[in-house]
Amino acid sequence: MSDDVKNDGKQFAVTRRGLLGATATGVVAAAAGGGAVLTGSRPAVAAASDAALAPGELDDYYGFWSSGQAGELRIMGFPSMRELMRVPVFNRCSATGWGQTNESLKVLNENLLPETKRFLAARGMKTYDNGDLHHPHMSFTDGTYDGRYLFMNDKANTRVARVRCDVMKCDKIIEVPNASDIHGLRPQKYPRTGYVFCNGEHETPLVNDGKILDEPDKYVNIFTAIDGDTMDVAWQVIVSGNLDNCDADYQGKYAFSTSYNSEMGMNLAEMTESETDHVVIFNIKEIEAGVAAGDGQMLNGVRVLDGRKGSKYTRYVPIPNSPHGCNTAPDKRHVVISGKLSPTVSIIDVEKVDALFASNADPRSCIVGEPQLGLGPLHTAFDGKGNAFTTLFLDSQVVKWDIAKALRSYAGEDVDPIISKVDVHYQPGHNHTSMGETAEADGNWLISMNKFSKDRFINVGPLKPENEQLIDISSDDMKVVHDGPTFAEPHDCIIVRRDIVNPRNVWDRNDPMWEDARKQAAADGVNLDDGADEPIRDGNKVRVYMWSVAPAFSMEKFTVREGDEVTIYVTNLDDVDDVTHGFCLSNYGVAMEVAPQATASVTFTADRPGVHWFYCQWFCHALHMEMRGRMLVEPRVT
Amino acid sequence: MSDDVKNDGKQFAVTRRGLLGATATGVVAAAAGGGAVLTGSRPAVAAASDAALAPGELDDYYGFWSSGQAGELRIMGFPSMRELMRVPVFNRCSATGWGQTNESLKVLNENLLPETKRFLAARGMKTYDNGDLHHPHMSFTDGTYDGRYLFMNDKANTRVARVRCDVMKCDKIIEVPNASDIHGLRPQKYPRTGYVFCNGEHETPLVNDGKILDEPDKYVNIFTAIDGDTMDVAWQVIVSGNLDNCDADYQGKYAFSTSYNSEMGMNLAEMTESETDHVVIFNIKEIEAGVAAGDGQMLNGVRVLDGRKGSKYTRYVPIPNSPHGCNTAPDKRHVVISGKLSPTVSIIDVEKVDALFASNADPRSCIVGEPQLGLGPLHTAFDGKGNAFTTLFLDSQVVKWDIAKALRSYAGEDVDPIISKVDVHYQPGHNHTSMGETAEADGNWLISMNKFSKDRFINVGPLKPENEQLIDISSDDMKVVHDGPTFAEPHDCIIVRRDIVNPRNVWDRNDPMWEDARKQAAADGVNLDDGADEPIRDGNKVRVYMWSVAPAFSMEKFTVREGDEVTIYVTNLDDVDDVTHGFCLSNYGVAMEVAPQATASVTFTADRPGVHWFYCQWFCHALHMEMRGRMLVEPRVT
Repeated sequence: MSDDVKNDGKQFAVTRRGLLGATATGVVAAAAGGGAVLTGSRPAVAAASDAALAPGELDDYYGFWSSGQAGELRIMGFPSMRELMRVPVFNRCSATGWGQTNESLKVLNENLLPETKRFLAARGMKTYDNGDLHHPHMSFTDGTYDGRYLFMNDKANTRVARVRCDVMKCDKIIEVPNASDIHGLRPQKYPRTGYVFCNGEHETPLVNDGKILDEPDKYVNIFTAIDGDTMDVAWQVIVSGNLDNCDADYQGKYAFSTSYNSEMGMNLAEMTESETDHVVIFNIKEIEAGVAAGDGQMLNGVRVLDGRKGSKYTRYVPIPNSPHGCNTAPDKRHVVISGKLSPTVSIIDVEKVDALFASNADPRSCIVGEPQLGLGPLHTAFDGKGNAFTTLFLDSQVVKWDIAKALRSYAGEDVDPIISKVDVHYQPGHNHTSMGETAEADGNWLISMNKFSKDRFINVGPLKPENEQLIDISSDDMKVVHDGPTFAEPHDCIIVRRDIVNPRNVWDRNDPMWEDARKQAAADGVNLDDGADEPIRDGNKVRVYMWSVAPAFSMEKFTVREGDEVTIYVTNLDDVDDVTHGFCLSNYGVAMEVAPQATASVTFTADRPGVHWFYCQWFCHALHMEMRGRMLVEPRVT
Repeated sequence: MSDDVKNDGKQFAVTRRGLLGATATGVVAAAAGGGAVLTGSRPAVAAASDAALAPGELDDYYGFWSSGQAGELRIMGFPSMRELMRVPVFNRCSATGWGQTNESLKVLNENLLPETKRFLAARGMKTYDNGDLHHPHMSFTDGTYDGRYLFMNDKANTRVARVRCDVMKCDKIIEVPNASDIHGLRPQKYPRTGYVFCNGEHETPLVNDGKILDEPDKYVNIFTAIDGDTMDVAWQVIVSGNLDNCDADYQGKYAFSTSYNSEMGMNLAEMTESETDHVVIFNIKEIEAGVAAGDGQMLNGVRVLDGRKGSKYTRYVPIPNSPHGCNTAPDKRHVVISGKLSPTVSIIDVEKVDALFASNADPRSCIVGEPQLGLGPLHTAFDGKGNAFTTLFLDSQVVKWDIAKALRSYAGEDVDPIISKVDVHYQPGHNHTSMGETAEADGNWLISMNKFSKDRFINVGPLKPENEQLIDISSDDMKVVHDGPTFAEPHDCIIVRRDIVNPRNVWDRNDPMWEDARKQAAADGVNLDDGADEPIRDGNKVRVYMWSVAPAFSMEKFTVREGDEVTIYVTNLDDVDDVTHGFCLSNYGVAMEVAPQATASVTFTADRPGVHWFYCQWFCHALHMEMRGRMLVEPRVT
């Protein structure tokens, strides 16, 4: 099955499914071959999408998809476009107990700001139970994905999260202090991640405690660098204007952020008033020196430098009206800024940026191309062969264009950089190519993440899915080969060669995820793997330790008293792939996932007397339904 | 696009995509034709799955999928197996605000029992935020789907919900009193729905207040009939043994429920001790007469009849060890009970049931077939042509068998009812055929919902998806044509011809969903469509009425005081298909969906002073990001 996937991405690119009809791709060969004899508008390789995979065949790539306001990370099989897993991050997940288990609440809460903890406690909330997850990106080493972590932002509640790629679970969430509403996020590409750069989008007072309210001239926006290894904030920079999307270079010298509201306007008219906005370029070495020198101020434990116009830490490159996407090309030299309200993209040459800082060169001197592509350019992806693909929101198209020709055109030559356009359905936002944000872009596939589906699927009512279209970019004539509906707003994604990602099949019993459970068990004289025959009482706190082996829990029943604070620890001793158990306590609103060799725990107050069954809610065995037991809650004596 | 879908299911069945290579299905024809010349194990019609649909082509069927412990309903395009929409029901949904908006909290809470409301309030919970949604079924009229409603159970917290098919939103959730942990659920097929029958699975004291605890001999299980029009409980019946799955006949006379734990055992050994369990048959007319006569007792406002063994309301038909699935055939005569621990299924002839009640005939006299099919038979589906398809959990197969031959074999003839078997991957639970639980079963497609995927997809870590396999049943040689990964446990589904389902594209401004908002606005002298320029203050209660038209809210800013109880009403005046807006209030944990022409509202305490941006989080326009405004919270004077 895996013969056609080597650790060498270049070989892989040549042998990809869907174009070559080797033994493993008979169906595709049939579809493509048959299609070749058809006339009309039907694409000859339509079957190259999900079609390409016969039952049991494996995808070539992992797709890591945001879910927008759904708050979760999604793992897709690509190019089949099948959703393989939902990883809860900023959302409350009924299935896994994310947002309810002690392990998830620790991840969700331990790095919130004290004021936020107070705020949530005052509202009786265990944690935030919504988020707006926009930009999922993998950690890099030396310019390409390294399979360690995924990082992602929450625009709704100003957070950044990390997912461990060995177990595909979130292990860290931090609230970013001093900033508001984190939007653009990208990891450092070189030498490694390293920093995770993220943008505060919405302007607020730097200390947002209500002393400053309707005084927009006192508002600021904040650029933040997080240490991807520790998930601590490394430093922050105050900027002029707001911040939208960002990217890093391949040299480890600069980061780039677009600003659509350089005006710092408070309404639509003000935000779009100016003919030009800008890209902010951050000088990482200069900032690190400033931090080391103690420049700026300490605020909420973070060193905050002033990088507004005139600062040595930043440069502001004027860009036509309301730039949006910010994408570094795999040629390691060009950064493409998409115009949104301007029909152009602006190409920055990173080799010309040194002069902006060293000799105060005209900021626009780093612009080496500005091709006019169409209406509403939002984001740009790359094939690693010198071509770029830009979504045109208003035109509902993707345009393929030649970067070198765009440079020549800007230099005065009469040459058209546009190679072809393809209609998409409808209004594309982000796009992404296979491995396209790394130095190993392979030019196989493009995904266009369209914001509307309208009539592309059978009608499901007033709320409709978005539509992600898979585009074959192996030739200049782009072909849409698959429509993929998605819930809420997937927003952004990355497409990662499957040899880079190597998750575990079962948990390591020593995993730090349940370190607190391990410590509590030790204090109670219990080995998690053995459980305890009876609940352990500590005043009105009761701890229940059980294990599970399909189809039974180690305890048939246990008794507690009304009002007890009960903690249930379940350790799944099954070590067979895919034998996940669940623990659901009926009519108590309690349910959680316990994957093979994992421990999970939940704490609740036993304030409902009577007989309550707990059961395994993650199908495990022919006698799964019989995998249940009773919690007996003795009523309070009145 | 819709020429091949007529309101006549029979014509539709003949012209289905994937078999005929007409102009609209060129790709399929190519794939199937090409495949025909291949050798080896590759199925020739592999492309009949998602493959069958070129971009923009529409699915033939709606699939309504449960999500198990994920708590939501899913709408699938079928046979492409693409998830078109998530409908939040028992879960907390970050994207739509389900579980947070006032409209959703009303649906979630207004029909909870008083004791549950107290329980949730004591724990500081607005509502349950998890559920275990197993069995989604559509309302029937005269033996087939009528496109009005979908009904579904929550095993975790003993609830039943209804989804309106005109808008694909949940409009009613009731907690079922006196029962515990609702599992099997099916609507009355004839004359109409009418009743929704549902099974309490777990045995508990009838009044479960803690007075009876570890006395299993005093536990009971409850069968419930809900009025599908009003969502009131019509009546309940106490049974002997527990209840698992159920179905109704096509005559409107009987309902049937399996019991895997007739022993009323409290652990695995006790539950599987007996060689036989049973099916309970409920006599609807007899029960209605008993209710009218005031038999039994009133408990929590519901008439509860005693239908334990010996009662006139029920009959108990012995069935080999631990029956599970219960499926009425489209021949309107046979009900197939799947054996689980027995390798057999038992066939009940509904025409022989009258005698069980009228003349106390031997309960087993209604059994007219009991073919041995393989290990672990769980559920059975039908093609409307006299054949049945039973999942074999332990064998990891689906077996196709001939109902008539099974009857002849049981009558003593030497005939083998088994037609063919196909391997599935792995361990199938529920299955379903297109229109298969109606009198219009069309024999086109079978879905096998397998509980394990193991190695069928690229590895996503210790928690793996399940695997739903699409099977072409148009010939006796069943063909698996598509593997579909799914999150958590989809559990069950139905497959409905698309002409039956006709949702709206935008909401009706008079929809009852936001009746409370309409009333409050009227009391405040506000028209929801016009909004109000300033917040309306009523003591420390503040109401904010705004409308949205892409890309702007009607209010740029509003001011409240720390500690105010703020209600935000947003009315989406856009009336264009698919232009849904969102309202997300940053760093307040507030977000909700507002679909075209809808009103939605949320209430929260403004206990965080400062400048907080609200923004549209459902992509709507090129200037979507600029669609934002400020809530200014004046700090409490200290």
